[in-house]
Amino acid sequence: MIEKFRELVKKKNRIFANLELIQWDLETKTPIKSKPYLAELVGELSMQEYDLFTSDEFVNLVETLNKEKNNLSEIEKKEIELSMEEIEKKKKIPADEYEAYAKLTSINQGIWEEARAKNDFSIVKDNLEKIFNYNKKFAEYRRKDEKNLYDVLLNDYEKGMDIEKLDIFFNELKKEIVPFLKKIQEKKKSLKEENKLNVPVDEDIQMKFAKYLAAYVGFDFEKGLVETSEHPFTLNLNKNDVRLTTNNKRNIPFSTVFSIIHEAGHGIYEQQTADNLIDTLLGAGGSMGLHESQSRFMENIVGRNRAFWKPLYKKAMGFYPFLKDIDFEEFIKQINKIEPELIRTEADELTYSLHIMIRYEIEKMIFAGKVSIDDLPKIWNQKMIEYLGIEPKNNSEGLMQDVHWYCGLIGYFPSYAIGNAYASQIYNTMKKDFDIEKALENQELNKITDWLGEKIHKYGKLKDTPEIIKEVTGEELNPKYYIDYLKEKYSKIYEI
Amino acid sequence: MIEKFRELVKKKNRIFANLELIQWDLETKTPIKSKPYLAELVGELSMQEYDLFTSDEFVNLVETLNKEKNNLSEIEKKEIELSMEEIEKKKKIPADEYEAYAKLTSINQGIWEEARAKNDFSIVKDNLEKIFNYNKKFAEYRRKDEKNLYDVLLNDYEKGMDIEKLDIFFNELKKEIVPFLKKIQEKKKSLKEENKLNVPVDEDIQMKFAKYLAAYVGFDFEKGLVETSEHPFTLNLNKNDVRLTTNNKRNIPFSTVFSIIHEAGHGIYEQQTADNLIDTLLGAGGSMGLHESQSRFMENIVGRNRAFWKPLYKKAMGFYPFLKDIDFEEFIKQINKIEPELIRTEADELTYSLHIMIRYEIEKMIFAGKVSIDDLPKIWNQKMIEYLGIEPKNNSEGLMQDVHWYCGLIGYFPSYAIGNAYASQIYNTMKKDFDIEKALENQELNKITDWLGEKIHKYGKLKDTPEIIKEVTGEELNPKYYIDYLKEKYSKIYEI
Repeated sequence: MIEKFRELVKKKNRIFANLELIQWDLETKTPIKSKPYLAELVGELSMQEYDLFTSDEFVNLVETLNKEKNNLSEIEKKEIELSMEEIEKKKKIPADEYEAYAKLTSINQGIWEEARAKNDFSIVKDNLEKIFNYNKKFAEYRRKDEKNLYDVLLNDYEKGMDIEKLDIFFNELKKEIVPFLKKIQEKKKSLKEENKLNVPVDEDIQMKFAKYLAAYVGFDFEKGLVETSEHPFTLNLNKNDVRLTTNNKRNIPFSTVFSIIHEAGHGIYEQQTADNLIDTLLGAGGSMGLHESQSRFMENIVGRNRAFWKPLYKKAMGFYPFLKDIDFEEFIKQINKIEPELIRTEADELTYSLHIMIRYEIEKMIFAGKVSIDDLPKIWNQKMIEYLGIEPKNNSEGLMQDVHWYCGLIGYFPSYAIGNAYASQIYNTMKKDFDIEKALENQELNKITDWLGEKIHKYGKLKDTPEIIKEVTGEELNPKYYIDYLKEKYSKIYEI
Repeated sequence: MIEKFRELVKKKNRIFANLELIQWDLETKTPIKSKPYLAELVGELSMQEYDLFTSDEFVNLVETLNKEKNNLSEIEKKEIELSMEEIEKKKKIPADEYEAYAKLTSINQGIWEEARAKNDFSIVKDNLEKIFNYNKKFAEYRRKDEKNLYDVLLNDYEKGMDIEKLDIFFNELKKEIVPFLKKIQEKKKSLKEENKLNVPVDEDIQMKFAKYLAAYVGFDFEKGLVETSEHPFTLNLNKNDVRLTTNNKRNIPFSTVFSIIHEAGHGIYEQQTADNLIDTLLGAGGSMGLHESQSRFMENIVGRNRAFWKPLYKKAMGFYPFLKDIDFEEFIKQINKIEPELIRTEADELTYSLHIMIRYEIEKMIFAGKVSIDDLPKIWNQKMIEYLGIEPKNNSEGLMQDVHWYCGLIGYFPSYAIGNAYASQIYNTMKKDFDIEKALENQELNKITDWLGEKIHKYGKLKDTPEIIKEVTGEELNPKYYIDYLKEKYSKIYEI
């Protein structure tokens, strides 16, 4: 019986890998006139995957194996547990609604693109409302003992997460970071900060540097590759085929630098999952929050670290010759500049989580029925002023900047902030084991990636995130480390 | 009933497109450690395609529709005809032998690569013998009224082709071209021919020029793209997604120029098949020979034409600045130089077909049982000396240079030579309709591609090659035009 289970899991994984490959092509290569056809293929394969997972054969198998759990290996036990959860999630939603929603969200990405390009929220408003309503409805179908309806979704992306925990987390952040940011902004007024890094560099050169950096931090090109796409992302067929993208903007050559280090963080995670998880349901990174902690760790704690650049700066000049005119200490300041931005993905380390907080608060309000979709533009802008002190000129750089909601990813945003917090918490533990800055100066990046591999990556989905965080750091999610890290780092940089 | 047929054809086309996409990835991108997994996926999808085509459902459907042919449209009729042929071909081979052979040829590509790299024919010899034996056996299963066993295979790649016709064709070629080549070689001794074009150019620049040229000759980037791979090729998911590759060799910057023009010839053919053939079995280029005629037409008759480069030469200097030091007339001579090469894919226009003749003669001998696999290295080298006047130093640059035989493509080579002949025959007809050289000078490439689209491309597989050639040129395959074209062109260039 377990053999049959293995066979179906393998089959599911192959459909998944095939799907990922087509998605990869769609995002990086597909000629414009071929996109509808490939999108159709994606739809078809997605339904194949869904059908397999909800088939009587698979469901019966899982239920029977679940009764005989004691005869199973640790890996198999976890696979059955996750399968039970997944089946329940899918089975509670009527198949016709599931399919209608899948179609809606897949076509809506294109509609969102149009709406954003035309800066016209009315084009996509009705669909956004439908998407939120579907999500509420599905959450109602699935709700068990969750206190709030929204908790059902939060739990999808971060097991065990709920409004209660997130409110504590974000309130702490708001209390500490918002006033701290105001202080920095005051200080900034008396400083003459120029941007010295936005010097044009040929995209081909940027790409070469990006690949160099990915390899430098430990991404294995025998098991992965790097390409370009509109928005950077990481995708994996399996641990031996992990694909990153970056976006080389001619006039902002450091954009690609930090985005590739970020994506490499995701990529190394996937590549370092244990070999014996291949062909199981566990052979990929854990929750979104944990995944994001790995990319943010790499991007910020490693990539914006003085010690990281010290042995690398001369090499960097080979790719970006204009650096020759920038003093090293000045460079470190430049890459750690605080500058509230309208666009989340371009935000600095300090303000990043405030962007997430805005989205979290809005999602919560919508789920509590406290706000209508019509009011969103106004609310969005108010919160931007309140937390970041800047106001979007229009909905394209405001409410419509992120695709997430428009393709159905609701309850997903908090993981980004949680990821940042986990990263600092992990950093705090790692520091006790060895001198991280010294390892960076000695170009021993593997000390860091080995540590992460051993304590986090190798487990894939074998352990849940709260379990891993507890084991590694000795405590649950605690925003203290994140706040301390930010305040310490930026007090020093801005001398406040 | 026809609806059901349409549905299954669509399904088959989708499996095919998916397969092509994975193949594309394997040849251009796939990380080394992911290749076995993706190769497995290819195997699986190939069997899905095979199963669908040989399923009782499909076979019964086709047979029933075949009896009611008169109620079908022209397109449907042709689809049923091709399906009947394809089913017969597949059904006559026992399923277990079909699968064993498929596995053998798919693993053997890797073995051939190893053997060639190590220059050790013994590594791959037994498999090559097996592959030839399978092909003989399958041809015997399938043989109907063909005079020779080998004719069964020839007919697979070029309908209506057989030894009788090919012998006439190649004898004519041998009689005319071999002594003509000897004359040129004599003449060359008194000339001081230098190679002025092998000047290093950055690969990125080469790629930009390659894309420029593909678009220049008419390849539509909204329905296609260009990448790099070890060996240039063209592949299509359907007419809206046609993918070319080239290979940018730093020290041979004109290698990519002619290979991209060649592949664009294939690509434009695919892109210009009629829209109403989409989702049918006819929406792709015709026979191999006809396909090759289009790429060779573009590469040689267009791409090596003085008139083609006249308005383009200055533009070319922008990409390849070293051209500024080369006089235009000298450049034209350089790109039309005759120089017998050991490697077919690097051969000039005149000697190219002699490489094919060697392979044809060897295939014929093997099928007639006149030679053993052990003798091939010797025979290969003898023929090289006889026809081209040069001798391979080892089997890697001799018998093992081409992958075709090692992955089961037997009977395929003659199409390349037939394609060259068709190209000249088509050129001869086109000339009567308009002044080709004038069109090239005026940068009206579309005059040529429109003509080809209207007379050849739009039909896809709706018409067989002999039918198209007869309709377009007024006669059957006739090597005269090819021989005349070559002798006229190169007599002028070498003043003999």
